[in-house]
Amino acid sequence: MTQNTSPSFSFEEAIGDFLVASRKCEVVSLERLLEAVQLVGRIRALVHQLQRERGASSLWIGSGGQRYADELAQYRAESDTTARAFREHLDGWLEPGACAHARSRLLGRMALALHGLSGLPSLRAEVSERTLSPMEAMRGFSELIRSLLAVVFEAADSATDPEVSRALVALLNFMQGKELAGQERAIGAAGFGQGMFDGELRQSLLHRIDAQERSFRIFSEFAPESACAAWQDLQGAGFAAEVERLRRQACTQGDSRGDSLSDPARAEIWFACATARIDAMKEIEDLLEMHLNECCSARITADRADLGAVRDRIAQLAESELRDSVPYAVFFGAPEGLDQEGEDDAVLNVPIVGHSVMDLVQRQATRLQSVEDELYAARQALAERKTIERAKALLIQHRGLSEDQAYKLLRQTAMNQNRRLAEVAEATVAMSDLLGKGGL
Amino acid sequence: MTQNTSPSFSFEEAIGDFLVASRKCEVVSLERLLEAVQLVGRIRALVHQLQRERGASSLWIGSGGQRYADELAQYRAESDTTARAFREHLDGWLEPGACAHARSRLLGRMALALHGLSGLPSLRAEVSERTLSPMEAMRGFSELIRSLLAVVFEAADSATDPEVSRALVALLNFMQGKELAGQERAIGAAGFGQGMFDGELRQSLLHRIDAQERSFRIFSEFAPESACAAWQDLQGAGFAAEVERLRRQACTQGDSRGDSLSDPARAEIWFACATARIDAMKEIEDLLEMHLNECCSARITADRADLGAVRDRIAQLAESELRDSVPYAVFFGAPEGLDQEGEDDAVLNVPIVGHSVMDLVQRQATRLQSVEDELYAARQALAERKTIERAKALLIQHRGLSEDQAYKLLRQTAMNQNRRLAEVAEATVAMSDLLGKGGL
Repeated sequence: MTQNTSPSFSFEEAIGDFLVASRKCEVVSLERLLEAVQLVGRIRALVHQLQRERGASSLWIGSGGQRYADELAQYRAESDTTARAFREHLDGWLEPGACAHARSRLLGRMALALHGLSGLPSLRAEVSERTLSPMEAMRGFSELIRSLLAVVFEAADSATDPEVSRALVALLNFMQGKELAGQERAIGAAGFGQGMFDGELRQSLLHRIDAQERSFRIFSEFAPESACAAWQDLQGAGFAAEVERLRRQACTQGDSRGDSLSDPARAEIWFACATARIDAMKEIEDLLEMHLNECCSARITADRADLGAVRDRIAQLAESELRDSVPYAVFFGAPEGLDQEGEDDAVLNVPIVGHSVMDLVQRQATRLQSVEDELYAARQALAERKTIERAKALLIQHRGLSEDQAYKLLRQTAMNQNRRLAEVAEATVAMSDLLGKGGL
Repeated sequence: MTQNTSPSFSFEEAIGDFLVASRKCEVVSLERLLEAVQLVGRIRALVHQLQRERGASSLWIGSGGQRYADELAQYRAESDTTARAFREHLDGWLEPGACAHARSRLLGRMALALHGLSGLPSLRAEVSERTLSPMEAMRGFSELIRSLLAVVFEAADSATDPEVSRALVALLNFMQGKELAGQERAIGAAGFGQGMFDGELRQSLLHRIDAQERSFRIFSEFAPESACAAWQDLQGAGFAAEVERLRRQACTQGDSRGDSLSDPARAEIWFACATARIDAMKEIEDLLEMHLNECCSARITADRADLGAVRDRIAQLAESELRDSVPYAVFFGAPEGLDQEGEDDAVLNVPIVGHSVMDLVQRQATRLQSVEDELYAARQALAERKTIERAKALLIQHRGLSEDQAYKLLRQTAMNQNRRLAEVAEATVAMSDLLGKGGL
């Protein structure tokens, strides 16, 4: 047959264009990620203020309006200052052009959080009129904080850089742990304040302690060493030991109405220790946020430089080289060493020299795969948390349980079956799919 | 204390803005999805032509250049026509503005596929000079087709609408099954052509048969009824029974060099039946693509209408209503009925009337959750396939196995341990993470 093998079109030039476009997209998506990281910072500041306002609100109601009035007024003013800064930051998020499904979800979560925030004045009015119990006030603030944390989880979920993703998972699990510690403080204050912990109160307390441990465990898996070391120090501090001692008293002696809990000073001691613990957490959070920002900026700098290098290299490659006959087999998996080299380039920002188009294509393939591999653990941690939340929501919705009861049921089932909480949660969600909406 | 509860800023108006922005993002991301669906259509056409060229190339080499020359020339010309159309479609993908991480991955995969395509002329030259064996020629084309299918998998992975995602999973698993059937045709032609199937050839054949079944099983889970019915019909057709009969002969009598396989006409019969089967598959693929396009267009129309309705409703809501005191508690999980209502609105495109801001916010929350729930199964199917490919790649890279050997090892392990293939693959990948790069 005749050697009519040359088609009347060519894909060679397009290869470089697609490589460059692919890298450009990476840089742009990193820049978006940085915006989300900044949003997380603002939410974190607001959450911290609301946590303090929550504590003061509960205490103020609990004291029959006799005490903590000044603190409450001060905390409200500080919440407002942070909320105002947050509000001003929002408009930038409504500009068009950056649309994607992940952003749609983030904006949707933001709408929910804003709806929560818009209810703050009426919540405060009910606190001022003392028409809520301390626990009801706590729940009101906790729901609001929950909707803000949901935005942070959504932001973490859309992160696509492995290192940034790990830093986000560490931060948000720490934030979650701190929030649970804040709820524990309020529950403990209520119990010690009334001199007893009934079954429900004790269950609430146990849930917060258990869930805190889970959050801090995940934080430790993903946090940088400095933050882990600071967390170790915190756990060895005097207030931490005191919190442990009071926790034990609350959990074991609550029902007996013994003398030990009837001491009113105990509530104050509890509150002071729990607060010291939470304030120390705030400092670790600051460390984590700094680390997150550094990761993000470093990656953007490296990726921009890398994009420039790829672009230059492709421009340099003589047409002759581009048109050289290339081997027809696209490798399945990169040859050993190349893998390492690809990562070094990205991390150390070594300029790319001497690469042929084939090498560049191969590098990009290795890159795509290694990003996916590295993201795996962080995504897994997020997915587990999501499944547990979903399982709880299903139990609350379909079986009329409270959140604490739902959590206890999942936890108990996991212990009975000697399985992980995430596995039981997954089975719960899967079962509800099988059985339909009314199934559980 | 004084009732100083009103902050000096307001989140009310922002809620509506974020709801609308969230929905707008959804529409934009659906429009991007439609572009990806159109790309899939073009890749599918190109793959089909390359599959035919592959078959003719193998046969032409196998016949010592004596036969199939006209068919080969014709198929090459047809491949070129489709490739040219594909090439012209590409430039639209390089326009900026639509950047996101998913797109970065898609563009990266495209660069790899283009690199494969740029090797087509040299592959053809080697075919024409008959410097390749029929099996080598087949592998060359198969690698190229694999890189094109990888683009399709990437597109499916970025789909975020549940129905479109299911349609994509059905289509691409069918494409994968058809590709495996094409490879099986070439392997069978080689075996029957030489009158025997040695151990390696038989293993290759068994791998393709087994992997086909897996692909078509997943297709059946996600395809619309019409396509499943067509698939049932295909399996009952005469050529399908004949393919089964010849498969059995190849697998059981291969090593004995009995008379039964030495009949040269058997290769022709095999090729004709396998081709009839593959051509029938093409028609089912057409059905699936039509369904996919319909899903995508319908969803875009519904979402645009829904966006308009949400926007109108928010504009209509009197300022007074927006400023009405809202309950402070954001519901955790929507009340029963609402869930259903939300979906009906989206699917039937019922205009939204009488919703308050609270309802709209709640609807959006339910929407976010239900999209996630519905996506779950389709994402799971994609993740499993990815894990299996990754496990195979690791075994090939680190233990020097061929693809067939890697697949056989995974399959055998799964059978021995009575576990699913995906589970064994996951364990393999997890182990390699633990043991490091050189671990497996």
